[in-house]
Amino acid sequence: MPGESDGLLLVKIGGGESINLDGIARDLAGLAGPFVIVHGANALRDSLARRLGVEKRVLTSVSGHESVHSDRDLIDVMLMAYAGLRNKRIVELLQGHGVNAVGLTGLDGALVRGRRNRGIRVRAGGKTLIKRDLSGKPVEVNRKLLELLRDGGFTPVVTVPLIDEHNVAINSENDDVVTLLGTELGADCVIQLIEAPGFLEDPDDPASVVARLSRAELARREGEVTGRMKRKLLALRRLVESGTTRVVIADGRVERPISEALAGRGTVIG
Amino acid sequence: MPGESDGLLLVKIGGGESINLDGIARDLAGLAGPFVIVHGANALRDSLARRLGVEKRVLTSVSGHESVHSDRDLIDVMLMAYAGLRNKRIVELLQGHGVNAVGLTGLDGALVRGRRNRGIRVRAGGKTLIKRDLSGKPVEVNRKLLELLRDGGFTPVVTVPLIDEHNVAINSENDDVVTLLGTELGADCVIQLIEAPGFLEDPDDPASVVARLSRAELARREGEVTGRMKRKLLALRRLVESGTTRVVIADGRVERPISEALAGRGTVIG
Repeated sequence: MPGESDGLLLVKIGGGESINLDGIARDLAGLAGPFVIVHGANALRDSLARRLGVEKRVLTSVSGHESVHSDRDLIDVMLMAYAGLRNKRIVELLQGHGVNAVGLTGLDGALVRGRRNRGIRVRAGGKTLIKRDLSGKPVEVNRKLLELLRDGGFTPVVTVPLIDEHNVAINSENDDVVTLLGTELGADCVIQLIEAPGFLEDPDDPASVVARLSRAELARREGEVTGRMKRKLLALRRLVESGTTRVVIADGRVERPISEALAGRGTVIG
Repeated sequence: MPGESDGLLLVKIGGGESINLDGIARDLAGLAGPFVIVHGANALRDSLARRLGVEKRVLTSVSGHESVHSDRDLIDVMLMAYAGLRNKRIVELLQGHGVNAVGLTGLDGALVRGRRNRGIRVRAGGKTLIKRDLSGKPVEVNRKLLELLRDGGFTPVVTVPLIDEHNVAINSENDDVVTLLGTELGADCVIQLIEAPGFLEDPDDPASVVARLSRAELARREGEVTGRMKRKLLALRRLVESGTTRVVIADGRVERPISEALAGRGTVIG
């Protein structure tokens, strides 16, 4: 566990509106580190896109799967919301609590290299077409940059976009970034802070927190859910299988989100 | 960094709309380095503020000096425009041309520490009040972070906001950041890329480029101009007085902005 050894603590901060960013920063300042932080900003991105009148195009594949079409305008909005406003406000909060944070996207120093998605098959005008966009999966981490920063006493605060094989900014799932970073850096502990008290048996009942999810249980539940939750569970299972000692899904809205997660409140996986 | 044989080139990219960012990135890729880049984004900030309906409040001091009142909303817009969209698109362009860029604000690793302005005296309702805002002057550079990055082969791409003495994000003049960085790092050459062919004798006549400005000339002209141009000239004079070998104000809109500046096209200062 962090604090007891030099093991890396990887914290994923969800992109919801009610996450207690200041509480997370204050909490981290009381721990020994080293930390790596990955954060989202989806609520901010959506509200910014609305204010700017940038339309979010959702495509439905022939197999019925829905996905957001990431065009250049949407990447611009992402750069403003994730890389600009949210990333730097988190860095500012951490600096205010004495944590020497450095904010980075996957573009910076090619920190997280992704591979562009091959596109999805959609029906349009009676034909089946392949629609490609600016999205992909993380495949490689620039460990050298992270090690330089760690050795210098800096805490990386990482977010999308990634840089793809053509050196272009692409959208990706932050959960996949967390799994790649956790695996590559051999994190001792990964904390996923969300807007719920943990993984819920019934999404509408906050009291239905599942205290523990075994690996087998995780695989079973992957078969029961769809969409983003399915991808999230798959990313978590890969993380556990990579040897990360401890994975906790915990409430990011409480007074001391990190301490609570380390005390095992929420859903412990593995 | 001072005293080393491979001299540092510091490039300031102006925040105008017609600056040829791709040309700058391609040009830098052909040079040996090391480089540090500082960039603005004022045109982008203004258009974003308009689109978001964030009002730019301009205050007039009792001495008649006009200045933008930087409140938290304006810093948010600045984070989106400078730290988010412009910074990361420049990093992406540089990566595309093989320059391993890392984008940073003054907040990241407390790279550029500023001191908050004391406020300006304004008249309101028959009284003289002191109005303070979130702006200040750069006073200290975290050289350790820049040296770490340089030793790792990374090119820093720096922009506002800065971090103040209370660890809060503040607005500042990028020209002052350039002077502080150039002085602290002992830059061999500083190139200022703007939306004009150089320093113009007559601001309305692009053919009136002043080919050379001596230190004495710079001081004299400071007395003749006002506002931002006065501050720009003062920042340049301080840079020259610090011992920087070569300072060039050159056109950022041409095909090869860096090469042209290094060839002495534009206004050579000192």
